[in-house]
Amino acid sequence: MGKASSRACTLLFRLLALAATATATIVMATSHEKTTFFNIQIEAKFQHTPAFKFFAIANAIGALYSLIILFVPPVTSYSRLVLASDMVITMLLTAAVAAAGAVGQVGKKGNEHAGWLPICGQIPKFCDQVMGSLVCGFIAVLVYLVLLFHTIHTHTS
Amino acid sequence: MGKASSRACTLLFRLLALAATATATIVMATSHEKTTFFNIQIEAKFQHTPAFKFFAIANAIGALYSLIILFVPPVTSYSRLVLASDMVITMLLTAAVAAAGAVGQVGKKGNEHAGWLPICGQIPKFCDQVMGSLVCGFIAVLVYLVLLFHTIHTHTS
Repeated sequence: MGKASSRACTLLFRLLALAATATATIVMATSHEKTTFFNIQIEAKFQHTPAFKFFAIANAIGALYSLIILFVPPVTSYSRLVLASDMVITMLLTAAVAAAGAVGQVGKKGNEHAGWLPICGQIPKFCDQVMGSLVCGFIAVLVYLVLLFHTIHTHTS
Repeated sequence: MGKASSRACTLLFRLLALAATATATIVMATSHEKTTFFNIQIEAKFQHTPAFKFFAIANAIGALYSLIILFVPPVTSYSRLVLASDMVITMLLTAAVAAAGAVGQVGKKGNEHAGWLPICGQIPKFCDQVMGSLVCGFIAVLVYLVLLFHTIHTHTS
């Protein structure tokens, strides 16, 4: 692959990472549902669950980083720093998807041993939106993984 | 830093990663508590929670990888492959700590909005053991992060 096409490819993947992280943040941040259950009004918000808050914040950081990195010139002297910071962001996004996914799994399936009931039956819209957000977050992780492999392939000896 | 001392340092960190992942696996796999609550016998096992199972399996894979990598000769032609595989293992361990940590947080604090009660009051020994295991897993992630930064520092242009 030539240098120009390699750069175009990197730029495309960075834009994709920006889109995925920004979408994940927005979809999670707007997830909200009100419902009535046995005459009790339930309001589901992502802020009620620490793991979902962490997911939203991590993806917002990821989106900001993906935006800033677009303006970093592709000079070789930066590549080491970019590889290290890409790696840290990938780890942050991975942790966010894993944490939110684990709590989402409890919401969907419950945990009978702990006495935690599944709640997605009561708030299906909220659950679907959280799931959509998780899919975007997972895509962002995959895109960053491709970027990391590409950097390792081109810049390491 | 000379080449020999750099290699000794890497070996030390790899041994530390092996110890941390193996300890995390064993401590999680042996976590178990029986208790009686309102005349109902409760048995807490890590197998009852998918996130804890994932944590144990991920750390077992991490320990096996950390062991195998000790026998890979430090030849430059392998460094690219080692960097890539180190990165994937670090992401796996990060996901494991995040997923198990998120569910552990629900166990400790509960989630009143979802109607999930904290359960650590009933099974303190189990909770402490899971917490210890999470600390070991977190140490393993930090050790791998140092190893990754070291490899990036020494092998990238």
